Amino acid sequence: MTQAHSPTTRILGIDPGSRITGYGVIDVMNGKPCYVASGCIRTRDGALEQRLAQIYAGLAEVVGLHRPDSVSIERVFMAKNPDSALKLGQARGAALVCMANHGLAAAEYAARQIKQAVTGQGGADKTQVQHMVTAILGLSATPQEDAADALAIALTDAYAQSGLMATSSTPSRRGGSGRWRL
Amino acid sequence: MTQAHSPTTRILGIDPGSRITGYGVIDVMNGKPCYVASGCIRTRDGALEQRLAQIYAGLAEVVGLHRPDSVSIERVFMAKNPDSALKLGQARGAALVCMANHGLAAAEYAARQIKQAVTGQGGADKTQVQHMVTAILGLSATPQEDAADALAIALTDAYAQSGLMATSSTPSRRGGSGRWRL
Repeated sequence: MTQAHSPTTRILGIDPGSRITGYGVIDVMNGKPCYVASGCIRTRDGALEQRLAQIYAGLAEVVGLHRPDSVSIERVFMAKNPDSALKLGQARGAALVCMANHGLAAAEYAARQIKQAVTGQGGADKTQVQHMVTAILGLSATPQEDAADALAIALTDAYAQSGLMATSSTPSRRGGSGRWRL
Repeated sequence: MTQAHSPTTRILGIDPGSRITGYGVIDVMNGKPCYVASGCIRTRDGALEQRLAQIYAGLAEVVGLHRPDSVSIERVFMAKNPDSALKLGQARGAALVCMANHGLAAAEYAARQIKQAVTGQGGADKTQVQHMVTAILGLSATPQEDAADALAIALTDAYAQSGLMATSSTPSRRGGSGRWRL
């Protein structure tokens, strides 16, 4: 007996930070997003390179466990100040090099696109994002803030891949085939 | 017949950048620095995560080839603007996570300390640094700018380890035993 094959795409969303890196994994089955996992990698006190290695190791564990087909991350347009930009950059560097070392190309979406995609409003606040992520994925509890952001990024990628996202700006899966370029 | 053992420390200096990452390797034998290797990792055009992976892979090759005992990097006090800070942060993140993944803790020195250590002047320009690195290590040619900076960082670490560096500020080998804290 043969069964019709439902193509499933597994998407990892990452919200890197020097102290907390959120991650969210969803499956997209027949255009419908389903929750798989989410959580936070909290870096402990210690040397900078050790904290970056914790981000790398934590994400390597997530990739090894859930084996995503694609990865998405928030695009940084303009950081608040040089000091926070440097810290965010270091966390992003550790996260992105981990993805590349696991053969994964990262799609980037602007914060406004992500908020628009999950709440219908580009200027939504973090609580609205948490609320909508919980509702869309039918979760029984609200995920932690950074995990919710990561799930929102993954959902944005899911919508972009399904062609369901109406937007005038251009997300890009850099280094890939450009197949999800809208 | 037994020989007196000369303790040799091999130091890797790194000058990370989003386009060019300089590296320099020196040996310190009986307090005297000797040139081992230096060069640049130039990232090619392409996706950000691929470019960061090139920095990671290039430095992993340097570490594998030269097996340094310690690593040093320039401390960033204040980046010029948020955009360049983010790019520098990403390159630093890739470089530092590579070091941590190879079991190496990174010592940090401020630009002023590095210039003071190799030229005797905290406000020296890049040409002076190149000139003095060439002279101190007895090189037959002037190293490329970023490679020279990396060698200057390694030399600063060598002087700090030998206790030869007079400075009022405090470099630190974070995550290590603090043995080189001045």
